[in-house]
Amino acid sequence: MTDIDQIASRNSNSKRIAPDRISWDKALFAPRRVALVGASATPGKLGYLFMQNLIAPQSGFGGEVIAVHPKLTEILDRPAYANLSAVPGGVDLAVIVAPPGEIPAIMVDCAAARVPVAIIISGGFAETGDAGRMLEQRIVATARSGGVRLIGPNCFGVISASAGLNASLGIGMPAQGGIALYTQSGAYGMAAFTQSQEELIGFSRVVACGNKVDLDETDVLQAFGEDPETRVIAMLLESIGDGRRFFEAAREIAQRKPIVILKTGRSEAGRRAAASHTAALATDSAITLSALRQAGIRVVDDGLTLLDLAAALDRQPPLAGRRIAIISNSGGTGVEIADLLESRGLQVPKLSEPLQAAIRPVLPAYGSAANPIDVTTEWRRFPEMYGSSLAALIDSDETDAVVPVLLQRSALMSEVTDRVIAEVAAARARGSRKPVHVCWVGSDAAEDNRRRLLTAGIPCHAWPARTAQVLALSAPAGRSQPRGATARPVARPPIGVDGGWLSSDLAFSLIADAGLPVAPWRIAGSRAEAIAAAETLGMPIVLKAEQAGLIHKSDSGGVRLGLVTTAAVGEAYDDVANRLGTTTVLLQRQARPGVELVLGARRDATFGPVVMAGLGGIWVEALGDVALRLAPFDDAEALAMLDQLKGRALLNGSRGQPAIDCAALASLIARLSTWTAGAPWLEELDANPVIANADGFVVVDVRMRVSASSNDVQAQSRRGTGGETPS
Amino acid sequence: MTDIDQIASRNSNSKRIAPDRISWDKALFAPRRVALVGASATPGKLGYLFMQNLIAPQSGFGGEVIAVHPKLTEILDRPAYANLSAVPGGVDLAVIVAPPGEIPAIMVDCAAARVPVAIIISGGFAETGDAGRMLEQRIVATARSGGVRLIGPNCFGVISASAGLNASLGIGMPAQGGIALYTQSGAYGMAAFTQSQEELIGFSRVVACGNKVDLDETDVLQAFGEDPETRVIAMLLESIGDGRRFFEAAREIAQRKPIVILKTGRSEAGRRAAASHTAALATDSAITLSALRQAGIRVVDDGLTLLDLAAALDRQPPLAGRRIAIISNSGGTGVEIADLLESRGLQVPKLSEPLQAAIRPVLPAYGSAANPIDVTTEWRRFPEMYGSSLAALIDSDETDAVVPVLLQRSALMSEVTDRVIAEVAAARARGSRKPVHVCWVGSDAAEDNRRRLLTAGIPCHAWPARTAQVLALSAPAGRSQPRGATARPVARPPIGVDGGWLSSDLAFSLIADAGLPVAPWRIAGSRAEAIAAAETLGMPIVLKAEQAGLIHKSDSGGVRLGLVTTAAVGEAYDDVANRLGTTTVLLQRQARPGVELVLGARRDATFGPVVMAGLGGIWVEALGDVALRLAPFDDAEALAMLDQLKGRALLNGSRGQPAIDCAALASLIARLSTWTAGAPWLEELDANPVIANADGFVVVDVRMRVSASSNDVQAQSRRGTGGETPS
Repeated sequence: MTDIDQIASRNSNSKRIAPDRISWDKALFAPRRVALVGASATPGKLGYLFMQNLIAPQSGFGGEVIAVHPKLTEILDRPAYANLSAVPGGVDLAVIVAPPGEIPAIMVDCAAARVPVAIIISGGFAETGDAGRMLEQRIVATARSGGVRLIGPNCFGVISASAGLNASLGIGMPAQGGIALYTQSGAYGMAAFTQSQEELIGFSRVVACGNKVDLDETDVLQAFGEDPETRVIAMLLESIGDGRRFFEAAREIAQRKPIVILKTGRSEAGRRAAASHTAALATDSAITLSALRQAGIRVVDDGLTLLDLAAALDRQPPLAGRRIAIISNSGGTGVEIADLLESRGLQVPKLSEPLQAAIRPVLPAYGSAANPIDVTTEWRRFPEMYGSSLAALIDSDETDAVVPVLLQRSALMSEVTDRVIAEVAAARARGSRKPVHVCWVGSDAAEDNRRRLLTAGIPCHAWPARTAQVLALSAPAGRSQPRGATARPVARPPIGVDGGWLSSDLAFSLIADAGLPVAPWRIAGSRAEAIAAAETLGMPIVLKAEQAGLIHKSDSGGVRLGLVTTAAVGEAYDDVANRLGTTTVLLQRQARPGVELVLGARRDATFGPVVMAGLGGIWVEALGDVALRLAPFDDAEALAMLDQLKGRALLNGSRGQPAIDCAALASLIARLSTWTAGAPWLEELDANPVIANADGFVVVDVRMRVSASSNDVQAQSRRGTGGETPS
Repeated sequence: MTDIDQIASRNSNSKRIAPDRISWDKALFAPRRVALVGASATPGKLGYLFMQNLIAPQSGFGGEVIAVHPKLTEILDRPAYANLSAVPGGVDLAVIVAPPGEIPAIMVDCAAARVPVAIIISGGFAETGDAGRMLEQRIVATARSGGVRLIGPNCFGVISASAGLNASLGIGMPAQGGIALYTQSGAYGMAAFTQSQEELIGFSRVVACGNKVDLDETDVLQAFGEDPETRVIAMLLESIGDGRRFFEAAREIAQRKPIVILKTGRSEAGRRAAASHTAALATDSAITLSALRQAGIRVVDDGLTLLDLAAALDRQPPLAGRRIAIISNSGGTGVEIADLLESRGLQVPKLSEPLQAAIRPVLPAYGSAANPIDVTTEWRRFPEMYGSSLAALIDSDETDAVVPVLLQRSALMSEVTDRVIAEVAAARARGSRKPVHVCWVGSDAAEDNRRRLLTAGIPCHAWPARTAQVLALSAPAGRSQPRGATARPVARPPIGVDGGWLSSDLAFSLIADAGLPVAPWRIAGSRAEAIAAAETLGMPIVLKAEQAGLIHKSDSGGVRLGLVTTAAVGEAYDDVANRLGTTTVLLQRQARPGVELVLGARRDATFGPVVMAGLGGIWVEALGDVALRLAPFDDAEALAMLDQLKGRALLNGSRGQPAIDCAALASLIARLSTWTAGAPWLEELDANPVIANADGFVVVDVRMRVSASSNDVQAQSRRGTGGETPS
């Protein structure tokens, strides 16, 4: 009997099944009854640790905890049953810590008992090799056919702070708060846990999906997005399964809640380790990071910043502008933090004379009200100086955030802490949404004050560099109102030769159809045709060998530039034909010089269609100065791409060159993006160079590769998958 | 009677003067007798705090502490005298905490008592305005004429750990160690103090010079360089007085001891605050940072990193290569740190099969020996896995540093700490100089282990980002063996017109004399001369209006390119002459296209002659892609300039362009640097563009500005000042 037959048999025998299953996320985050399969009364065993975590009074779980055990009827004072179907009222959440070999049978039990969701903590599956992978597949098949959603296997587990549920390896509950954490690394979950306790970082949920055999980062992201207890979403991702689906979900949610992500495995060594660690191939790093930012996600580089930024965003509103005010009892530290803020693109503007005049009366004569506000070392007046200037700065419209630096003596004085807390509370009561972040340089003796600030919702970043980093990252990522763009299907061209490369003739036709400006061209099969074509197009002429797959034409001598007479065209034809053995050439009128751009597109295995734009020639070769976006997108997104180029200033015109019409260029890039999204057969496109000059834009050369026809059906169907059920 | 007369009078009256003064640094760091002027027995007063700090038994000061007080004969059980000359045996160090108005008289007393060095803690001088500045100048004049060196005024004070001397505002002594800290910010000194106690950062000396009226950052740097107790020098600089002198001293010392510097005031807001804070004009930030790096200094961006890096360099040898090995009990954290290391230019190479084979036997089957080494969660085997793999990695020649990640459980286990300490000690005993840095992600419960590691000299950086940052910065800065280059004096040209600008004719002559390749040119004063010159030079011709000070010739239509006939030359002459009203033009044969470079030189007010090299045209305009060095320097330094350009790849040749002869280019830049150093009258030079192509290099345009003749005497004499006595 197969596992699935067993479910059917069990279902028909059972009379105690819950009549309707609640949704997996409700079952996971607010279960009425949790069953621990593999529960143990023996200290040191995993089944004992999880039992303790679930029933710990300080966790405050309000539901029932039930043990599943083949023989016992009670474990640690909780009722035990032989199987899940025997549990009165049904089980919302099954937590499984049994040996891997026993889990197929347990999954049959879960399905029979109509358990909405199960967490498999145990390892020993795909991460260990082929046998484990087969075992995993068997469990997934059973769960799918039985309607059981799975977290894991090989994972840290799940914490739901508001429900008091600790179904994780972490000992003790983290502080309760608004951060939902998804972590692909169990160790990171443990470390976050400790950090929560020491930095008072409050979590709503913690979820680790381990091998992600069913529920994955996108499912969890969507659940976090809908979760009323969650204000900020933090994710540590080692791999992303379906990049396009994740992108679409994140883009929608990021408009309502901040999402902060650390994507590891960016480096070569990182990818090597990630591959061995999660059995998932890393996708191309640049595309992944671009896509995350395009979705409006705040992308960070390390795990500590992930937590710190999430906590800051949970405590304070995001930074809505770039102008920062600093109040410091150390002139030197004020200068240091100003340097660091400006290096991160923020500003520390000199305050207006009226605002300085409002602040100056509380300062000593040697203080400065210019910004940074220097309250000097007159410590007896610290509470009033910090308090009054903080209030004035919060209420002014000259700055977008205020950073009180509490350093040594000012950190030690509880009266300063009192005033800062009171002024922020009063400002919030007045409706102010201006963020206040403390830069903390205090000794251990001042720890009580730091904890009081944190408890009052005021972030305390250690030392200036950390303050500047977190404050800068707290600004909204990407565009606040991403607008979609709609793709229309593009008919598939004939299959290319030589690995899918199309002829230049065909490639030019296709992008001209796409609405891109192309230099008029002619194909010629003889010297006479070449001369006739040149006369039609007008001099100067460029002549190129027409040979699909001949990628670096200029390197192989397949390109002749600047031909100004018919004789020269004829000679060039003969030369190219003789040397390359091709009789077909492409002729174009040579474009006038201008700024060289590069546009491109490719289909990424996980994120789907991607468009690239950058400065061409040496810029892309020497600097890799390009911007990437998932297609399709609108003109505004394309403008944002141009703004992120290192050589952006080049588009403004210089040395006698006119400025480039960036709006027109953006529109052209957006057009390429909608066309690319409608052409699932397109594997790769490279328009390089695209010349921009006073005449406008013109694509001078293009290469295009298409998939074998069987592939794009698959590609289209994968892109169509957007639902939550992977079955 | 002036102060100076008073000294003379007092000297003649006194019989108790110490016969020979010791050097100021010996007097400051190891005084036999310290006098506190302004001592007080009243708690809360500064004179009480300093008395307490000087006599605190836990500081362990072995010398005598003496109070100076107008009336009392004893303060806090120490003898008090009415003035310094009355102290038996003489005073090595006077610490002054008196009100500013009393300090001129105290300085007379110091001079009369032949005190080698005095620290003026009190503020109320130049930082408060003109009256304070005048008071300060009076004190300095007295000190100089009396041979008293000064630290301060308006400063944090001085700590000499090995002498047990705490003559600072900091309460308690920092841990003793090899770091000498110079800080221009008193608050930073306090914060460093706390950090010392909490992070076990050990100091040899702490010096703050406040307003720097006499001894400054260079004097202190030189003293630290000679100090046998000091292994690492850390400096927080808000301003640098004589940049050239500091550079020369640092370059020499950096070959023997690591120097780490934070230079604040890099941003606009930072400079505003710095100017109000230290009454010192900030020098141009790019020149300062380039000069510090050129001297071999490790430059950091923030104060916490200054301390952390100095501590790491005091604990471990510097990183001698780029290859890092990681040992982790969290695969995810291993990936994270690998990403971060690679983003900082380090490598996490896959280990060779033999090395993996040596490590693999201690790991579980699911572990990885590839790098990062993943010891998995098998915690019972942690000590052996960490210990064995650490030993193997230290002894291998495949890596340049080892980073054990101690995270949660591995951090908590004292046996792991024991093994790490033992393996590092054993390796040092074997003569290994390979650095080991721990990445620490431990809870408070593991604090004892962290402190044991620190005490054993193993840095413990919190979380991966910090680890990667400090490890990367610990690599030697700049070239290990900077060689000098000698400048020969260059004769001064006639003074320029229009703000010092020279004619193109003269400027071309000068740089041709300097040995730079210049396109042959002719000056013409009429149409006929222009045509004759063109025929001599050969076509195509460039014709430029010859007008000193006409900076943007091409913008004003003063340049005509690509003239290929005598008729065209004649027409161009008439056109330029008519439009610009000049009769003199410069003609050159037009250079063939190539890569455009820019070379330049300027005289910085504090650092003296500086040379700039970069990629010209759009690169310098859009990216500011240039490298700076203080002149003179050798070819190797010039090659390092080229290597730091963002567009460096452009010099390798691309798109049919040949590679540029970088050795020849470097030689040319070095030649410009020696010439610039020999021409103190040169204010500014801009050779732009310099065209590099298959023909070699050619300077196509040059602008040059010289100083009014009176200035360069001053400039030369300032540059010549290299001694320690600023008098």
